[in-house]
Amino acid sequence: MNFDLKTYLQEKQDLVNENLEKYLPVEGDYPKEIVEAMRYSLIAGGKRLRPILTIAACETIGGKAQDAMRVACAMECIHTYSLIHDDLPAMDDDGYRRGMPTCHKVYGEAMAILAGDGLLTYAFELLTDSYEDNDTNNNRNLIKIIREIAMAAGIKGMIAGQVVDMLSEKGQREKSTELLDYIHKNKTAALFKASIKSGALIAGANDTELAVLDSYAHHFGLAFQITDDILDIEGTTSELGKPIGSDEKNQKLTYPLLYGLERSKEMAIDNVNSAVNSLSIFGSKAIPLISLAQYVLTRRK
Amino acid sequence: MNFDLKTYLQEKQDLVNENLEKYLPVEGDYPKEIVEAMRYSLIAGGKRLRPILTIAACETIGGKAQDAMRVACAMECIHTYSLIHDDLPAMDDDGYRRGMPTCHKVYGEAMAILAGDGLLTYAFELLTDSYEDNDTNNNRNLIKIIREIAMAAGIKGMIAGQVVDMLSEKGQREKSTELLDYIHKNKTAALFKASIKSGALIAGANDTELAVLDSYAHHFGLAFQITDDILDIEGTTSELGKPIGSDEKNQKLTYPLLYGLERSKEMAIDNVNSAVNSLSIFGSKAIPLISLAQYVLTRRK
Repeated sequence: MNFDLKTYLQEKQDLVNENLEKYLPVEGDYPKEIVEAMRYSLIAGGKRLRPILTIAACETIGGKAQDAMRVACAMECIHTYSLIHDDLPAMDDDGYRRGMPTCHKVYGEAMAILAGDGLLTYAFELLTDSYEDNDTNNNRNLIKIIREIAMAAGIKGMIAGQVVDMLSEKGQREKSTELLDYIHKNKTAALFKASIKSGALIAGANDTELAVLDSYAHHFGLAFQITDDILDIEGTTSELGKPIGSDEKNQKLTYPLLYGLERSKEMAIDNVNSAVNSLSIFGSKAIPLISLAQYVLTRRK
Repeated sequence: MNFDLKTYLQEKQDLVNENLEKYLPVEGDYPKEIVEAMRYSLIAGGKRLRPILTIAACETIGGKAQDAMRVACAMECIHTYSLIHDDLPAMDDDGYRRGMPTCHKVYGEAMAILAGDGLLTYAFELLTDSYEDNDTNNNRNLIKIIREIAMAAGIKGMIAGQVVDMLSEKGQREKSTELLDYIHKNKTAALFKASIKSGALIAGANDTELAVLDSYAHHFGLAFQITDDILDIEGTTSELGKPIGSDEKNQKLTYPLLYGLERSKEMAIDNVNSAVNSLSIFGSKAIPLISLAQYVLTRRK
């Protein structure tokens, strides 16, 4: 099978971007100022990794990309909300993101807080769109998807990771490998997991398939976070869209800090291999998910 | 029929408080610091008007209070999140709420932002709890409820109201009666409407019943906001839990500002009467909703 990841990523990114544009146009039944701030962070950039994973998981199970589109775009809304709030002066106080001034730098803090709130809430509006057309089984699945996403984004998932990360920076948690695992399992991996599993649920995945994808997503998320930490040390500002070494400056708990750079690189590779090996039951249908996991290691380019 | 509103309010408040305590206990599968901040704002105070309306609407249609409890508590989570974020220094910069220091005064801005995010997200976790027990029809209704709530809380509802209110204070919108109506329809009435309609949907309300409750909720929300504006002028700090005259100080667009105090009082009464008159099809089953609307006029005591 000929599979070109670069073409695949470009096609899916375009598809996601088209649909984000469609779901959140400039003109709508809302104040233009809030949507301008939301769109500034949502539309302009990003690799669209979470929605692409949703689509890829849906297609791996035999579903159609179009059926996954609302869920995929909802995941990008939640991801973007988390970036906007994380960048706020009271939080990480970041002035640049994806190579551009952050939302609060452009629209002010109040509007950035509301833009984040708006994107998080809009995700649930998107998720419940067009339920009237669904049959019974799909409605049951949809509630399961909403629940999966709410839990992954909330105080048992992403917010838990963010809170503990913050407390660790303030010295209110002892830095340890367990703590680092906890932070990244929640702060990063939980949303990847929800992206992947919700995509699979749209296509009607069974419990075995969900368990396999759960394992894939777990290792994918860890590999992603480890390479993120490595990129922060080795990357350049233009590759990352934020100043290099900012984690070190903030005394952030990272994999290179605890394990050293070489061991961290090995761990990233090990996790990608584990992610890939999880997928054997899907055979060649899993090629996009396999390539996406491998992409994590080389994504600086 | 003997109906004592004071007893009714106390019973329902206790029921809501018990369930909030049950759904968000101190100890859980989450970092204790975030739940402490969420609980500080959620558990300690408040009239529980939105969840009580959810329960009352459910019972008016013939449902049981217990079946409405998750939705009722989700509404209180969303209401509390909106208060926490509105009070932030970048927003209204309020130091007191419900007679206590605001969330960011006690836990800092970062934790308050996350506590708000956590409560908003937790609402959707609560809403989708126990869906496995639902039958087909309930699942369809539940998605409708989630959608109603997401839209009411989002950029076509509460956030729209907050944004336009903020822009009007900055002089970026011309102060007019239409603008005031827009702000309050969205900032306040939308969440009341979602509280009431979702309670009715739990009990399987038909379209006629929903339309009637929509009208009730509209007038209820307006009456509530008008009396809120009046209380800000006439109330005392201990009654309101915030300094009196703070709206005037902030040059906020209010009903007394546009219509004068006397006309505003008449408008509040007119809206309560319209709310009450909407309910005639329910006969004596509507007594709690009728009393709740009348309570809006006297709630300072």
